[in-house]
Amino acid sequence: MAQQEVTNGGSEKKTGGGNDIMEVIEVKFTALKPQLAVEAPKANEAILFYKAAFGAEELGRTLHPKRKADQEHPLILSAQLSLAGSTILVSDLADPSETPAKTEGTGLVFYLETDDVASAINKAVGAGAVVVSEIAEGEGAGCGLSRVGKVKDPYGVVWAIGTPAAKAAVVEA
Amino acid sequence: MAQQEVTNGGSEKKTGGGNDIMEVIEVKFTALKPQLAVEAPKANEAILFYKAAFGAEELGRTLHPKRKADQEHPLILSAQLSLAGSTILVSDLADPSETPAKTEGTGLVFYLETDDVASAINKAVGAGAVVVSEIAEGEGAGCGLSRVGKVKDPYGVVWAIGTPAAKAAVVEA
Repeated sequence: MAQQEVTNGGSEKKTGGGNDIMEVIEVKFTALKPQLAVEAPKANEAILFYKAAFGAEELGRTLHPKRKADQEHPLILSAQLSLAGSTILVSDLADPSETPAKTEGTGLVFYLETDDVASAINKAVGAGAVVVSEIAEGEGAGCGLSRVGKVKDPYGVVWAIGTPAAKAAVVEA
Repeated sequence: MAQQEVTNGGSEKKTGGGNDIMEVIEVKFTALKPQLAVEAPKANEAILFYKAAFGAEELGRTLHPKRKADQEHPLILSAQLSLAGSTILVSDLADPSETPAKTEGTGLVFYLETDDVASAINKAVGAGAVVVSEIAEGEGAGCGLSRVGKVKDPYGVVWAIGTPAAKAAVVEA
C-alpha cells in the first residue's frame, strides 16, 4: 500500500485519459536531442559549419547504408554533435520531397548561452552565418536575457546568442 | 610560445574570414536551450502539457511586464523547463503577426531518448499529443535507433521518441 502511494506520487500527473494504467506510467527520458535534417548531401558541410561557428564536437556518425552511383560520399543518416553541453543530430534528407530544416518564421529558436555575445556572433558570421537581429541589451533583449543577438546559419536555422540576466529577474515557479 | 599553441589548438578552426583576430576567438557556450514560442496566451497550457506528457519540471518563468486589460493572466516571456537533462524555453508570442512554433514539415524534430518507447508514447497521447509515425523497429527506425515513434504535440512540435541502437552500429568520427 505504501509502495503504491510512492508510485503514484512525485511528478506524476493524471493525464485525463481515464485510463488507470496510463495514469501511473513512469517514463524516464535520458536525453533531448534536437535533430536538423539538411538538404542532401550538405550534412557533412553543416557539421563543419557547426564546428567552426559554435565549437561543436562530433561524437560519431551513422551513414546511410545505400550509396547511389552518382554520390561521391554516402549520405549521413545521423551525426551526433556535442554543442554547449547538449547533443544535436544532423542528417542528410534522403527523400528530396521532404523539407530541410528551417526555423526562420516558425516560432522556434535555438538559444545558445555565452558570456561573450559579440565574439560569438563575430565567429558565427566568420563561419558563414548571417545576422538577423543586431545585439539588443537590457529590456530590449527580452526573455530574461541581458543581451542577445540572432544569426541564421546557412542551413536555415536561427540561433539566438545571449547572456542570461541576473537570477533576480526570474520569478520562481 | 607554448601557451600560444594551446590557445590556437583544440577545437579551434580557421573561419576563412581572413581575419587573424577572428581565427583565434575562443567562445565558450554554457547551454543550448531550444525555445518554443506558442500562440498567446497558451504558453501556460503548453507548460502543463510538457509536464504531463514528458515529466518536464518548471525551473522558473519570466512574465511579460505589460498586461493588457482583457488578459486574465500576464503573458509568459520565457519559462524554463527541465526536460530529459536539457532545458527548453516556452514563451507566449506577444506579437500576433508572428508564427507560433511549428516543426512539422520543417526537417526539424526533437528527439527524446527513452528505454520505454511504447509507454512514453502512450503517456504523451494521454496528455493530448497525436501519433504521426507508428513505432518502427530495427532498420525501419533509422538514424541509429533500435525503435522510434513520432508524436505531434498540441502546439505543432513533433517529438521523435526512441531508443538508441547498440553503440556498435555507430561509426566513430
